[in-house]
Amino acid sequence: MEAKRVIATYSVETPFTLERAAASIAGEQSTGTFTAVPGETASLKDRHGARIERITPLEQVGQPSLPGAAVPRGHNGIYSRGEVAVSFPLHNFGPSIPNLMACVAGNLYELRELSGLRLLELELPDDFKARYPGPRHGIEGTRRLTGVYDRPIIGTIIKPSVGLGPAELESLVYELAVSGLDFIKDDELNADPPYFPLKDKVATVARAIERAADATGRKVMYAYNITGDIDALERNHELVVGAGGNCVMVSVNSVGLAGLAYLNTFSEVPIHGHRNQWGMLTRHGQLGMDFRAYQKLCRLAGADHLHVNGLGGKFYESDDSVVKSVQACMQPLFGGYKAMPVLSSGQWAGTAAVTYERTRTADVMHLAGGGILAHPDGPAAGVESLKQGWEAAMRGIPAEEYAKERVELRRAFDKFLREDRAQ
Amino acid sequence: MEAKRVIATYSVETPFTLERAAASIAGEQSTGTFTAVPGETASLKDRHGARIERITPLEQVGQPSLPGAAVPRGHNGIYSRGEVAVSFPLHNFGPSIPNLMACVAGNLYELRELSGLRLLELELPDDFKARYPGPRHGIEGTRRLTGVYDRPIIGTIIKPSVGLGPAELESLVYELAVSGLDFIKDDELNADPPYFPLKDKVATVARAIERAADATGRKVMYAYNITGDIDALERNHELVVGAGGNCVMVSVNSVGLAGLAYLNTFSEVPIHGHRNQWGMLTRHGQLGMDFRAYQKLCRLAGADHLHVNGLGGKFYESDDSVVKSVQACMQPLFGGYKAMPVLSSGQWAGTAAVTYERTRTADVMHLAGGGILAHPDGPAAGVESLKQGWEAAMRGIPAEEYAKERVELRRAFDKFLREDRAQ
Repeated sequence: MEAKRVIATYSVETPFTLERAAASIAGEQSTGTFTAVPGETASLKDRHGARIERITPLEQVGQPSLPGAAVPRGHNGIYSRGEVAVSFPLHNFGPSIPNLMACVAGNLYELRELSGLRLLELELPDDFKARYPGPRHGIEGTRRLTGVYDRPIIGTIIKPSVGLGPAELESLVYELAVSGLDFIKDDELNADPPYFPLKDKVATVARAIERAADATGRKVMYAYNITGDIDALERNHELVVGAGGNCVMVSVNSVGLAGLAYLNTFSEVPIHGHRNQWGMLTRHGQLGMDFRAYQKLCRLAGADHLHVNGLGGKFYESDDSVVKSVQACMQPLFGGYKAMPVLSSGQWAGTAAVTYERTRTADVMHLAGGGILAHPDGPAAGVESLKQGWEAAMRGIPAEEYAKERVELRRAFDKFLREDRAQ
Repeated sequence: MEAKRVIATYSVETPFTLERAAASIAGEQSTGTFTAVPGETASLKDRHGARIERITPLEQVGQPSLPGAAVPRGHNGIYSRGEVAVSFPLHNFGPSIPNLMACVAGNLYELRELSGLRLLELELPDDFKARYPGPRHGIEGTRRLTGVYDRPIIGTIIKPSVGLGPAELESLVYELAVSGLDFIKDDELNADPPYFPLKDKVATVARAIERAADATGRKVMYAYNITGDIDALERNHELVVGAGGNCVMVSVNSVGLAGLAYLNTFSEVPIHGHRNQWGMLTRHGQLGMDFRAYQKLCRLAGADHLHVNGLGGKFYESDDSVVKSVQACMQPLFGGYKAMPVLSSGQWAGTAAVTYERTRTADVMHLAGGGILAHPDGPAAGVESLKQGWEAAMRGIPAEEYAKERVELRRAFDKFLREDRAQ
């Protein structure tokens, strides 16, 4: 019986032929070493060897993207690019994210046969489904917990990111929680700081949220940043659920995919996955990893919410790339594993239109920090402006048209559009 | 009292001035967001803000290294490079590796004010020492456990990496363990595969090692690859120590620095830190991280041994870079935290000379896979050839001269030098 296989698709750049580069990848990551060794028999290679599934030549370039590539004798100065799909027998490593990564990434980025390597996509057999349950709450659970349907979850981030004391934080959270927001999150910079330990922060925030719930009849979802050492995660999670909390957040790259999967073994509430440090893995187009592969790993490991930047955001990423990220999160994985894409960074009411126009989905969280907190008429007006921005977008009405009759949206445009244009 | 601070040094490339780029880094990673928000008071900024410590201008280039940088109006097409040191108050995040990373790396790689960013170095206050004990065995413990002093620990890697069955593995490990080797490790591709689960592998390997110890009176150190999900690490570690094992190995980037630190809370044996996937984080010179910063984090998290590639190796990395990595591991950290650099990849007897000449230390592990297993006269001759290579190097005798009287070394040169030259 043919063994189940993982298929990894790479973008490759090489001074050699694409065939030779692909063979290096396949050899390095399965049975080979730099010289033939006893025991590497034909039948062992047959059972355990990686296999080149597909090579699609793309453009050629005159400069290597990464340093250190060897060049063949008489090299003509041309580096070939292409997509290479390689498959690995699952029984070499089993349905284990950590061991999968050692195989599909491993030492590959160091091969001198390559002047560029990027992991684009992973196709994983069902065995991963049996090992990793994925998002336990996902889009549906998040909607149920927030009571928000048919539009995005509107949220904000506690700002300033660091430095607020108990009284200031409690009053800010209360103000935000009664402002009509669906969701509030800690900043990724603020988890369990010595000046205001998580234990105290949870107590403070929970008090504000319960007070607000008493006033409004509705409990906001709050993502407490519980990022920390592995042995702190369970304790931190306990603090949150013990105080009636309904969401935890982790910096996925800080706790690792393994840490995320571990949190998912006991978390009772949705896990808000923050992808900070991701830029390091993805910003150069010929290195690292595409979000297509990364989001799949994050969903498998249990992220109920996953950050994707925002359209018209403040970061380097193009809108096209953000749209692709949202679409990647929407792709079914093992018939489910739905995570809610989180649009964030430089967001405000005016970015709703382009977001909906480009993604055609309302199954997202739309977070605005400054875009809500710095609204000229305060956070409640900021929240209202975002909801109005989405109403307009989903009804196909130009936002500036819709804003004529809606003061919150108009005032948001007056302030933030001017700031955008002044940049 | 002035708060304790973490100092992060970056290599920066920017279409703006270095001052503006540095301010973006400092603002993004402490109190700021894209627009001024209420509550970001002067006193809060003073207590919690990041501070630019130093800006050292370097060369200018005509092309951005990374895509997506914004350019200022009337940009002259010049991108400035420099070293920028930024300090962060420790009380913003505390002595926590996961939260440190969210601060010093975080969203920085995504800033559009930057066309290049690389974390070069981290200076950490003593508080980290109190939280993370670092390598519990280190160089001294590894020498004690192996009984090897005054020369490198000579080791090999089980090859073929994957596919050996119980009988083949037991006989190979026995052969290696009686061959005079100090150290054997699993390949990073081989941890707990379904075709040969770790439980069975540990039993098989331990049996071979005990048999060999009975024969030789000396027990080889074997690094069992226990990489896996977080909740498997303790179980896997138990399997190893329960079978009398004396070393465990993990793929650091698979379990994460957090996973490594977690393993270090209970591991009774040295932790062999394999850095596969590291190329993704470091191969582009204007992105990611320098090994200088990374090795410090790995040592803090508890790596007793840490891979650094090898001189004259098979990967893209230059010898200069490998030498710097060895030197970085030798730098004192909190007055100790000594990890043993592991030289590996394309190594054989002939690479001892250049390694010693360039690093002037014997406090390393020198691993040869093919260079031992594929020695024409078998593994014992391969091991002997490596020891001879180091003797020659440490006595200042040219290896090919020394080889005249030593058949193992001569035969190694005959085979592997020819293969090297044929490449």
